Amino acid sequence: MSRTRVHNLFVSLDGFAAGEHVTFDQPIGDAERLFGQFDGRGIHGIEGVDAPITVDLALTTLWGQGIGAEIMGRRKFGPQTGDWPDDGWQGWWEDEPPFLTPVFVLTHHPRESIEFPNGTSFHFVEGSPAEVLQLARDAAPGKDIRIGGGPSTVRQFLEADLIDFLHLAVVPITLGRGTSLFGGLEGIEDGFDITTVSSPSGLTHQLWNRKVS
Amino acid sequence: MSRTRVHNLFVSLDGFAAGEHVTFDQPIGDAERLFGQFDGRGIHGIEGVDAPITVDLALTTLWGQGIGAEIMGRRKFGPQTGDWPDDGWQGWWEDEPPFLTPVFVLTHHPRESIEFPNGTSFHFVEGSPAEVLQLARDAAPGKDIRIGGGPSTVRQFLEADLIDFLHLAVVPITLGRGTSLFGGLEGIEDGFDITTVSSPSGLTHQLWNRKVS
Repeated sequence: MSRTRVHNLFVSLDGFAAGEHVTFDQPIGDAERLFGQFDGRGIHGIEGVDAPITVDLALTTLWGQGIGAEIMGRRKFGPQTGDWPDDGWQGWWEDEPPFLTPVFVLTHHPRESIEFPNGTSFHFVEGSPAEVLQLARDAAPGKDIRIGGGPSTVRQFLEADLIDFLHLAVVPITLGRGTSLFGGLEGIEDGFDITTVSSPSGLTHQLWNRKVS
Repeated sequence: MSRTRVHNLFVSLDGFAAGEHVTFDQPIGDAERLFGQFDGRGIHGIEGVDAPITVDLALTTLWGQGIGAEIMGRRKFGPQTGDWPDDGWQGWWEDEPPFLTPVFVLTHHPRESIEFPNGTSFHFVEGSPAEVLQLARDAAPGKDIRIGGGPSTVRQFLEADLIDFLHLAVVPITLGRGTSLFGGLEGIEDGFDITTVSSPSGLTHQLWNRKVS
């Protein structure tokens, strides 16, 4: 049993999961407001996180549990488009990318892998969602695979029916524009058992588990 | 910052956290119904747990995160009372106690420590809650300490104002009798910021975080 999981996917009330205009200074475009309540320190567990232990934090800590590899879209790795410039870019995270596993970056433009001492490595790959998922599974036998986003990447994997678990956090704000998570996915919820939990923070957490047929 | 934490404390609507009549066959007395919805496989995280990922499971996974030692009452270790019989008893868990850290068992009756290959060790100690907490902290520098129960032990530590975090799961059943968690603790909630989350399972989770003064 190796699952394909999405965690901490923050979505506005109007269905946008990231902003437009991604630049070096704005990794998630003009949608920073989406993440105002996200405490990223919790992704590796509550150890050392000097904050109240809440349901939001508890759900955040699922991010790394049992994960053996991540798949991400190119824009999550960097703002460049087209051929990779010779600029030494190694991702948004400087010397400490938080993944601690192999990460497969979807791109049509080949590039050499990058390895960090903390266990994170980036591999630049092209292929269908199913093909890239197989690469990730081969790199992480028996472990779960995280689909790390951005929203377009999650949408691709939902369309291909390759997501087993999805944690959506609905944020009570309207963005008006940005990258839609759900465009073209009418009825996608049919394949999932969905439970919803309201958090005192104002977030609404949805846990989508693939229906057992 | 080293916290003292309680996790997965299941309480009936009438405030009982364990049953009476603890025997070798009934580790939690006649209150098994309290734990009907508890999936103990989650205490070490969701890895390998072949079950839907729910808010109940997410909260369960906090159990071991950042924990360096546990303190438990004698009855959680075994049903015996008085002097330890020479019966080879090593706890309810046979060869694989799930703690993976030092565990300090409160007892007035001395006994030699027990060590298991998986990192669990049991140490039998006498002293006030503050004294035993200090022993646990010395054994786990910088880590959090879990107060593992039973309810009488949690109550002792609450009375001594030594709990920083408490996860209560209120179960929608009435037991009518058993070990009360709250007896003698009128107003104990004053020291905590409490948030409540309803789970689709019917459980109500309360997260008590010590107020920052």
